[in-house]
Amino acid sequence: METITIKDIARALNLSTSTVSRALRNSYEINAETKKLVMEYAEKMHYRPNPIALSLRDSKSKSIGVIIPEIANNFFSQLINGIESIAYSLGYHTVIFQSHESYEREVANTNYLVSRKVDGLLVSLSSLTTDLVHFEELIEKGMPIVFFDRVPNDIETHKVVVDNFLGSYEATEHLIQSGRRRIAHLTSPIYLSIATERLAGYKKALEDNGIAFDESYVKYCHHGGKLTTENEAAMQELLSMPEPPDAILAASDRLTSGCLSVLHKNHIRIPEEIALVGFTNIGVADLLNPPLTAVVQPAMEMGQQAVELLIRLIENPKKISKFETRSFKTSLMVRESSAGSRS
Amino acid sequence: METITIKDIARALNLSTSTVSRALRNSYEINAETKKLVMEYAEKMHYRPNPIALSLRDSKSKSIGVIIPEIANNFFSQLINGIESIAYSLGYHTVIFQSHESYEREVANTNYLVSRKVDGLLVSLSSLTTDLVHFEELIEKGMPIVFFDRVPNDIETHKVVVDNFLGSYEATEHLIQSGRRRIAHLTSPIYLSIATERLAGYKKALEDNGIAFDESYVKYCHHGGKLTTENEAAMQELLSMPEPPDAILAASDRLTSGCLSVLHKNHIRIPEEIALVGFTNIGVADLLNPPLTAVVQPAMEMGQQAVELLIRLIENPKKISKFETRSFKTSLMVRESSAGSRS
Repeated sequence: METITIKDIARALNLSTSTVSRALRNSYEINAETKKLVMEYAEKMHYRPNPIALSLRDSKSKSIGVIIPEIANNFFSQLINGIESIAYSLGYHTVIFQSHESYEREVANTNYLVSRKVDGLLVSLSSLTTDLVHFEELIEKGMPIVFFDRVPNDIETHKVVVDNFLGSYEATEHLIQSGRRRIAHLTSPIYLSIATERLAGYKKALEDNGIAFDESYVKYCHHGGKLTTENEAAMQELLSMPEPPDAILAASDRLTSGCLSVLHKNHIRIPEEIALVGFTNIGVADLLNPPLTAVVQPAMEMGQQAVELLIRLIENPKKISKFETRSFKTSLMVRESSAGSRS
Repeated sequence: METITIKDIARALNLSTSTVSRALRNSYEINAETKKLVMEYAEKMHYRPNPIALSLRDSKSKSIGVIIPEIANNFFSQLINGIESIAYSLGYHTVIFQSHESYEREVANTNYLVSRKVDGLLVSLSSLTTDLVHFEELIEKGMPIVFFDRVPNDIETHKVVVDNFLGSYEATEHLIQSGRRRIAHLTSPIYLSIATERLAGYKKALEDNGIAFDESYVKYCHHGGKLTTENEAAMQELLSMPEPPDAILAASDRLTSGCLSVLHKNHIRIPEEIALVGFTNIGVADLLNPPLTAVVQPAMEMGQQAVELLIRLIENPKKISKFETRSFKTSLMVRESSAGSRS
């Protein structure tokens, strides 16, 4: 299966084996053009590095730890596939851990990964993490860490995010334009970066369209919708208001499907009685009843860029003059759950 | 947060600290009643072992490697949550790897996990794995391995499975009883244990109901539905048959949602023109259009029992006289996608 070697690539492209080897490791010593040439040829010929051999040779573990809140979430599982596709092609193993939205488990995962000598970490914070000392200490000690999606404001490193403000703004404006006025927002704890940004986009869209912001239409789920009961309680509060919402903007995968489920159980017609838009990367959005309007994040690409930034930190630790925050745009996929105007 | 110690538990229950410690490690030296007492009290008091400290003390890594085909699959992500819930409470870390249905990556993951000194492995085979030498060698060297879901017939160790034959039999019989006669079966490669068993259950139900088995109604997807194109091609073949099926039994999460998607695209009425039943643990089955009849597997419980068996192998390596295969029953959740008789 793995018949092609670095030597074969070097011979074919008329380069030295050390150039090919460094190009494949994405080394900063090799120029972009040569890297592209080598990588494309390697891809074409199905070249695969041997991670164990690499690991023995340069005394690194050639592995990357990934800590996410949960894998049973379409956004995160797609993101991990993005991470793995690049990591694997560069000869790194990807070790996946779940924090289950628990600060304690996030800390335990971090300690474990460090004790097992991963070369770097990719992290999306748990919804219950407010203290960041476990990451700050590691960064001080020189451990490369890149944050994605749920990122800390106070730690300086590479970050990969989406423009949550804009995604939320566009979704809210879409609901307003389709005639909704009492738009509720179902979201995660406010100390998460993504929750703050999505709330801000929602508020700005209301303001720009002359609708007063009403705090009672915003519900925070402290476990990010992980607990069904929490989700249902928030929805029941909204539904039993004197003036219940005529639309809901849900801020995560789980919150969106939880919300849809509660609306079904209560026999509420979507979108006639309540329209629904959710931040979700669920693969079956168009197969739901009704087809769901979704704010979709480019999860695969985010994962690819996050790991690329991390591997750059790992392999060229002294070349970082300035950290980047890469921001991606979300896409609003309008479907029946928010289409048409209010009846 | 972690204020309660083993000493506190020992004092409260009037046991020695070493008994409590061994009970919490699920040691065979402690009887079941005492274990239950200790574990329940520990649970009640939110006792949490410190995996790093445990690891230093007994020179084991206190970690378990899990290799699954993919995490973007409801069955596997629920199963992993089952594994983690037990592993964490017994002081083990869970390290998750995806094979992406690739034999090569399954081997690479296995080698990596062994090189990082995990204490044992939990494995569900990739759809492209036919050669098992990488696992056989490890078992010979004494590495504890428990297989689940997609298990090898030829390796002797603990296994956790569902009764795929019965699950498939019941689903097929349900379709026959609702008036369908041309029932197609969309499945994974036949050398996977689950595919063989599901095919056998399907065939037996046809036979018991006097319907001749027709090989042209069975379609194999070699990547288990991971490639959309593969899935679509199989469906198109079925739809363009002179006598297209009036029902489909899909054998996995991805095959089921892929099939539903193709039926939607072709504007085929479900269940009137074609009824659909799928092996799937998707959380939104009842929110789909139409609500989907599903063969559901007790994924969480399977994960819990698999890790329990594995930890027993790890901690009491000499006490195994005979390996077990634990088999769970599936549940058929009948919903609109297969309800009512043919129009």
